[in-house]
Amino acid sequence: MKGMTLVAEQKKLVEEITPRDVDFAKWYTDIVKKAELVEYSSVRGCMVIRPNGYAIWENIQKNLDARFKATGHENVYMPMFIPESLLQKEKDHVEGFAPEVAWVTHGGSEQLAERLCVRPTSETLFCEHYANIVQSYRDLPKLYNQWCSVVRWEKTTRPFLRSLEFLWQEGHTVHENEQDAREETIRMLNVYAAFCEEALAIPVVKGKKTEKEKFAGAVDTYTIESLMHDGKALQSGTSHYFGDGFARAFGIQYADRNNQLQYAHQTSWGVSTRLIGAIIMVHGDDNGLVLPPVIAPTQLVIVPVAMHKAGVLDKAEELKNTLCGFRVKLDASDKSPGWKFAEHEMMGVPLRLEIGPKDIENNQAVLVRRDTGEKTFVSLDNIEASVETLLGGIQRDMLERARAHLDSSVTDAEDFDTLRRLADEKTGFFRAMWCGELACEEQIKEKAGLSSRCMPFEQEGISDVCVCCGKPAQHLVLWGKAY
Amino acid sequence: MKGMTLVAEQKKLVEEITPRDVDFAKWYTDIVKKAELVEYSSVRGCMVIRPNGYAIWENIQKNLDARFKATGHENVYMPMFIPESLLQKEKDHVEGFAPEVAWVTHGGSEQLAERLCVRPTSETLFCEHYANIVQSYRDLPKLYNQWCSVVRWEKTTRPFLRSLEFLWQEGHTVHENEQDAREETIRMLNVYAAFCEEALAIPVVKGKKTEKEKFAGAVDTYTIESLMHDGKALQSGTSHYFGDGFARAFGIQYADRNNQLQYAHQTSWGVSTRLIGAIIMVHGDDNGLVLPPVIAPTQLVIVPVAMHKAGVLDKAEELKNTLCGFRVKLDASDKSPGWKFAEHEMMGVPLRLEIGPKDIENNQAVLVRRDTGEKTFVSLDNIEASVETLLGGIQRDMLERARAHLDSSVTDAEDFDTLRRLADEKTGFFRAMWCGELACEEQIKEKAGLSSRCMPFEQEGISDVCVCCGKPAQHLVLWGKAY
Repeated sequence: MKGMTLVAEQKKLVEEITPRDVDFAKWYTDIVKKAELVEYSSVRGCMVIRPNGYAIWENIQKNLDARFKATGHENVYMPMFIPESLLQKEKDHVEGFAPEVAWVTHGGSEQLAERLCVRPTSETLFCEHYANIVQSYRDLPKLYNQWCSVVRWEKTTRPFLRSLEFLWQEGHTVHENEQDAREETIRMLNVYAAFCEEALAIPVVKGKKTEKEKFAGAVDTYTIESLMHDGKALQSGTSHYFGDGFARAFGIQYADRNNQLQYAHQTSWGVSTRLIGAIIMVHGDDNGLVLPPVIAPTQLVIVPVAMHKAGVLDKAEELKNTLCGFRVKLDASDKSPGWKFAEHEMMGVPLRLEIGPKDIENNQAVLVRRDTGEKTFVSLDNIEASVETLLGGIQRDMLERARAHLDSSVTDAEDFDTLRRLADEKTGFFRAMWCGELACEEQIKEKAGLSSRCMPFEQEGISDVCVCCGKPAQHLVLWGKAY
Repeated sequence: MKGMTLVAEQKKLVEEITPRDVDFAKWYTDIVKKAELVEYSSVRGCMVIRPNGYAIWENIQKNLDARFKATGHENVYMPMFIPESLLQKEKDHVEGFAPEVAWVTHGGSEQLAERLCVRPTSETLFCEHYANIVQSYRDLPKLYNQWCSVVRWEKTTRPFLRSLEFLWQEGHTVHENEQDAREETIRMLNVYAAFCEEALAIPVVKGKKTEKEKFAGAVDTYTIESLMHDGKALQSGTSHYFGDGFARAFGIQYADRNNQLQYAHQTSWGVSTRLIGAIIMVHGDDNGLVLPPVIAPTQLVIVPVAMHKAGVLDKAEELKNTLCGFRVKLDASDKSPGWKFAEHEMMGVPLRLEIGPKDIENNQAVLVRRDTGEKTFVSLDNIEASVETLLGGIQRDMLERARAHLDSSVTDAEDFDTLRRLADEKTGFFRAMWCGELACEEQIKEKAGLSSRCMPFEQEGISDVCVCCGKPAQHLVLWGKAY
């Protein structure tokens, strides 16, 4: 290895990755493996989330959890099992989830009197609990959240995007009336949108799901949709208004201010490790992962050059201490600098600091941006400020590039032929009017291969008639191919 | 409620709790319910951990996780399911756990070709993963930890102490040789012991488990044992040295420095939500929970007195802002001060600040310690320093009281009759010599009702012969009744 040139070494590590524009799906799984985010296990469809992957999830959790707490939410933990009879209490809900749950039938050597499913989501458990603890309007609202893993028995799986088991958070809240619950539903959708833009540098479109696409048991489902590099959409988070449907099924009643019994109104909302898939597919490139500084486990890696020369390692250590306000790592392993460059690029570390004998002589260091490859020589005297500025710039630019990609990927279609042709020719989001009928939605899916992503909050009349049937239009819909 | 006197109100809330010395078990479940730590659910043996309980667990996690990271560990996440064939790879391990696992037999409507158990612990999954990723001595050590929930199909359950599902962390590490692995085993036992003393104010005895009590698959199991108020022991954390047994069963081999294939040596270690049970049973009293300041979700509650009087609520708000460096809460609800006092005592809040018109006039506040009930009048000018000092004092005194209780509860027995008599007459730990034979250990269990808690690190020869059979003694053993 030592005889190889720097460029050749970098090439060697990178050439094991399928180029992004050759085979996006293969590129994705290559990144997931090479950046050591996930390893497969002998459990079908379940991932081992490795340190690099889990550290991203920890940062997502930390950032989101602070946002939940700032909006008055408390964390709880519910059992991971749901008795079959409890799952069946709300009829739409059980219809939606029963076909895809894992069933526990035996405890030790004993067959259970009633089967338990491993939670696919915890509405039923939260509802049972709320029926126990909510008696009066004084007990409301209850604003609970849970971090846990859930299981859905999927046929085909892909790391982070769709797996039998995944990690997520699920918020479940109870309110006195429709208005409060609807406000909560939108508040949390906005929390998700702000988090995606500010922390993940991923712009999203906010909107409402159609009846066909909404959550099993919800009155309304809202979504944030993001656009991957390949032009496919990813549903990145959802927030549901339940009305009093679950409250009626589970008997969640409270005495109101006039001492009258009322059914409570509820919401739920969730995001999952799927967000890591979004980070990979929005920001990654042919050299590997590209992590936004806000959630990068390592924000800055220091690579000493000519490490054997006197003073280099000492200086690198000193810089590590100076920069301890950032998530900094010093790579003093015995690999060559070129190999290290390629490796940390693969892992997506936002910023690299190179320091060698020449640099020390000149009281400078080289800072290299992961997102653009841009090199800057900076003075060691105000290195903290330089790093701060560059990390801020990376975070901002990543969001702007992703937003430019999103904005340039939205095309309008006024008639069905145009929609079909566009869907064949290009990728991205398509805006077209819709009458509101399921038949047209299914037709568009079947003929153009597009599913309704959402009815965006920003409605605009691009035509008066449904793109499919020509009847009067009710909604502007964002259509796309989705993960 | 408003007509009741303060004392009567406090009494009302408290009288719903069984006194601690009347029925300790009943007292425990009363506290768990009244302090709103846990609620039962329709899932047998599984708890709903409520906000008050989960917030304690979050603080335990935060504190422990920082200690794990400071000792070089990384977090990962393994699947929650273990295929039956994988569980069976290490024979002692499967014998220990198979009788108490939950089995998933169906996914959706389909019967699985192979049953999956819900993880009771994750040695087998970690081993499979390590066999995949460990090739060379350069890959070692691997120092991984996982925060998750596990399931053990217990017959009788009690909140936090023994439940079908519980939350825990499990560390799993791989090393080049026995020495490194043994050092890790003891290092993590020491991390647990320091955490219990410094964060939970619970002193522990460190020692080694007997063959009978060790973990299924371990060469050696080490434990920290703590003493509850009722004189019973609680195994509060364990750390295991596995030798190369799992490595041989799972094929975890690496090329050593001489390019020879070697089996790796492993450890695992864990603590669980059981620690919350320990906090309750070590520190709680007849007025409720008593939380050590380091892990108390609320360290200080501000209760305004005569809240309707001009300026009181403003002053309370101002104090809340001044004290924002602590985990502070202002109770401005419309309950009476007396009711609030009792309620926050029940919840275990370490310090209460009372502020009323008279206090404001005198530029003072009243600080009341939860652990001793002691009241101090302090000037508002240096209120932060006063709170800091008092919280530090509470933490220190709680540990000292618990240590005094532990120290005074250890009794030595030189012969079997004395041991039996002592075990009848009193509670606590009993020190007695042991020959090392299983038969004697079982005899002591059967005749004196005592189990071996551990062979303490601090060995002392209190006699030359086994307390049971009279043969030459090998070890000093700490015996007790345990949860």
